[in-house]
Amino acid sequence: MLLLRAVAGRRLPPLPLPRRGCSRLPPSSPTAAGRRGAAPVLAALLGLGAVLAYGERRRRGAQAAQATPVPRYPLYTREEVGRHRSPQDRIWVTHGTEVFDVTDFVELHPGGADKVLLAAGGALEPFWALYAVHSQPHVLELLREYKVGELSPEEAPPAPDATRDPFAGDPPRHPGLRVNSQKPFNAEPPAELLAERFLTPNELFFTRNHLPVPAVDPSSYRLRVEGPGGRALSLSLAELRSRFPKHEVTATLQCAGNRRSEMSRVRPVKGLSWDIGAISTARWGGVRLRDVLLDAGFSEEREGEWHVCFEGLDADAAGAPYGASIPYGRAVSPAADVLLAYEMNGEELPRDHGFPLRVVVPGVVGARSVKWLQRVAVSPTESPSHWQRNDYKGFSPCVDWDTVDYTTAPAIQELPVQSAITHPRPGAAVPEGELTVKGYAWSGGGREVVRVDVSLDGGRTWRVARLTGERPVPGRAWAWALWELQAPVTAGAELEIICKAVDGSYNVQPDTVAPIWNLRGVLSNAWHRVHVTVSR
Amino acid sequence: MLLLRAVAGRRLPPLPLPRRGCSRLPPSSPTAAGRRGAAPVLAALLGLGAVLAYGERRRRGAQAAQATPVPRYPLYTREEVGRHRSPQDRIWVTHGTEVFDVTDFVELHPGGADKVLLAAGGALEPFWALYAVHSQPHVLELLREYKVGELSPEEAPPAPDATRDPFAGDPPRHPGLRVNSQKPFNAEPPAELLAERFLTPNELFFTRNHLPVPAVDPSSYRLRVEGPGGRALSLSLAELRSRFPKHEVTATLQCAGNRRSEMSRVRPVKGLSWDIGAISTARWGGVRLRDVLLDAGFSEEREGEWHVCFEGLDADAAGAPYGASIPYGRAVSPAADVLLAYEMNGEELPRDHGFPLRVVVPGVVGARSVKWLQRVAVSPTESPSHWQRNDYKGFSPCVDWDTVDYTTAPAIQELPVQSAITHPRPGAAVPEGELTVKGYAWSGGGREVVRVDVSLDGGRTWRVARLTGERPVPGRAWAWALWELQAPVTAGAELEIICKAVDGSYNVQPDTVAPIWNLRGVLSNAWHRVHVTVSR
Repeated sequence: MLLLRAVAGRRLPPLPLPRRGCSRLPPSSPTAAGRRGAAPVLAALLGLGAVLAYGERRRRGAQAAQATPVPRYPLYTREEVGRHRSPQDRIWVTHGTEVFDVTDFVELHPGGADKVLLAAGGALEPFWALYAVHSQPHVLELLREYKVGELSPEEAPPAPDATRDPFAGDPPRHPGLRVNSQKPFNAEPPAELLAERFLTPNELFFTRNHLPVPAVDPSSYRLRVEGPGGRALSLSLAELRSRFPKHEVTATLQCAGNRRSEMSRVRPVKGLSWDIGAISTARWGGVRLRDVLLDAGFSEEREGEWHVCFEGLDADAAGAPYGASIPYGRAVSPAADVLLAYEMNGEELPRDHGFPLRVVVPGVVGARSVKWLQRVAVSPTESPSHWQRNDYKGFSPCVDWDTVDYTTAPAIQELPVQSAITHPRPGAAVPEGELTVKGYAWSGGGREVVRVDVSLDGGRTWRVARLTGERPVPGRAWAWALWELQAPVTAGAELEIICKAVDGSYNVQPDTVAPIWNLRGVLSNAWHRVHVTVSR
Repeated sequence: MLLLRAVAGRRLPPLPLPRRGCSRLPPSSPTAAGRRGAAPVLAALLGLGAVLAYGERRRRGAQAAQATPVPRYPLYTREEVGRHRSPQDRIWVTHGTEVFDVTDFVELHPGGADKVLLAAGGALEPFWALYAVHSQPHVLELLREYKVGELSPEEAPPAPDATRDPFAGDPPRHPGLRVNSQKPFNAEPPAELLAERFLTPNELFFTRNHLPVPAVDPSSYRLRVEGPGGRALSLSLAELRSRFPKHEVTATLQCAGNRRSEMSRVRPVKGLSWDIGAISTARWGGVRLRDVLLDAGFSEEREGEWHVCFEGLDADAAGAPYGASIPYGRAVSPAADVLLAYEMNGEELPRDHGFPLRVVVPGVVGARSVKWLQRVAVSPTESPSHWQRNDYKGFSPCVDWDTVDYTTAPAIQELPVQSAITHPRPGAAVPEGELTVKGYAWSGGGREVVRVDVSLDGGRTWRVARLTGERPVPGRAWAWALWELQAPVTAGAELEIICKAVDGSYNVQPDTVAPIWNLRGVLSNAWHRVHVTVSR
């Protein structure tokens, strides 16, 4: 590895070093002419300092190219590439069959150094696919300057696990996801990408699976809707689409366990250790649950307390399906926008997100937006599912596993006001000058985020962040607000950055975690705190 | 005064001491026989220790009565009685024309010592009127033991101010109210009585007037409802009652400034210094605003953003009326229960609360429940009123009077989750043994209070309080929850009692006041903290 590192440490293509006798591919040869046109485009993308640095790099690169014979590249396995994930080990990435050492490019990346690091040790394509700016010729040309090798031709995607593992049929996932549990699959987008876009790309949308992903044949799929008086509807996907008007809603979904890791630091809790990313936003397309219920024979007004129960096609080893319910009033309210969705951001629902049909309950904890929906029924009681009755409830910090009584707390439906800082990241060294703090904020029940306060000094003084994103319909603010704040910071300072949001009912986040601690680690919405240092 | 104090300090009726030659009324003479039957009733009301003490008192009282000739009583003015308001000065009260020194009864009062002290120096009747338990013969008999004098016969209620003061026509008020401003009248019930009943007696309901109370002739009163297309309704009270079904709602109203005094202690704010009592609950009777709007020609669905604007008959010196508005969707929603109320707790609306007709918007800040309603209109913009546009809005703690921009914040509608401790009072010395902590909790938007956590150690550990009161319809929890918690406390302890509530959307109260401080001192809903000491 010492030789490889030394070679990789150079900015220019290395001399050909045949490895394992496998150097079969012809080397590519970067030339100065080939990079023509890249600098002006980058000038628009980068700040002036970065452009100057890039110009200097080009000049030296061109000189070196003239002095160097046509290079040949060593071959690497994916596993070898995967060892290069930090500046100390050098940062390698692949594109196609090419291997690049981008260590020296990281700080020049127009989208921020943190974004490049997400791909460290792996393939660029899944990340480039999310950001159209990369699909321009100059980007690949720029990258070629950093080429250090080729992937061994025998490298191929790993074969799927063909054992009788119930999760063997799970779909492939984006490598950028931060995996909290592989089986069942639970993963969140990295914080660096979380609030980069108002709509989360489907590939990065947080995934909260309780069970293996069912494999559904869309042609034989039927949704069963239990109507009043023993009648029932059985609807194919084509019938759903043709019988009911299409309705689209932009809505954020959040897991009850989002930010659980902060709660665990107070005292251990049971649950997946979500960071701040168990929340994402999509444009959902489908039919209104209301329309389907009315078509099934239910009326808008219904005396007494009723619940609409959902069952998924995902089931445990004993065949018990995932289930949840919501109050009837929400299900039939035209203002509540509850969907049976078949589209996510203009595409067919991905398998991890409920293909071919899922519930989307805007403003409500994600656990009620049942995926792979197979059955809808109206009941005088809540869903009998474990996840409705004996999970996803909040308790006092004084309740422990010996004293907990799930009947004493209501099932979580609407979630409280929430916000988090996505940039900078905890422990970062940020440069002096103008610091940009970024993040998201959201509240349940359609309550709009009306303000985000940010402190750089641990809560002693506050500033008001600028909210971005679409202005919602009052009372139907289903999607998050993104926000940012610019503030000058001086070298050497230690900053405790805090954000706290206010919603349209003027609810605020609690100051600290301990008083809202609960044994399941749900509803973690205290002020988000990020410590950083300011470097020169 | 020395002689009077010495006399008043005795437990038994004093010797007759004619004062100012005005001793005209025949003295009443307590006898042991006259008190028969009091002890068994009190035994039910008081704890055993108190009953024993009461028995001993009876015995000695009877002995003394036998040894004392028929007493004659000195005469006092109300002003003289008013000087006896503390144990040091002795605690005097009046009932009818009689004057009593109840200093030694205070600790024996079945309803708590704090309640008796509310009447100290004044008349008992306004307080007894609130608590039917007092209208039993034995209560007056018990009281007579403490008689020390008579009111001078020339004492009469003070004449109303007949000057041109615009507030001269304001109605008389209950003496138990804590007055924050006399003109306009703003007052709250004393904390000791606040949560004693689920429904606040009308006389004690917090009063928040912005202007003088209008004098309305109910026979000529008309409500004007501006319909679509220039049509308008003009409705008499009789027409309102006959044309629309009566609808009743139990709803809590809270002023945006409730608990402002706690915010002022962080930094000065502008506004009346409300304690924890700018909140009260009543059973309101009237007609649905929805029914009136539909009758006026409006439809349930209305494209775009609309507001229902209210104008009161209360007006400033320039004739500008009080005004406010709510979103159209809330006004027409059958689930929002917005009323035009003519009844309060089964009685005609009191003048201070909007006689003959007021708006009641459940779950929303009191400022939108316009009193003395004269006009309803639907508008594409909010009410132009000062109180809608340039008041009753929340701001960041960093906003001051130089930087405030009222257009940047939404008008407060739904209020955030709130709770407060009504017993014990701050600074109290509570007896060792079992301490009962009591209070109220409420949240805006019909969100039910699902839990109240109480700490006796400044927030280090928590217990769950017992909620009392009516179970609400889900999503329409318009009324507060009362709560209490029993806990053992040991002599010498200093307790920092804290309460914090959780609502149905799992919103919680913020830990501290400073981060929610705002220049107008509204939305003060941090944890309520009460320091007490435990005595032996």
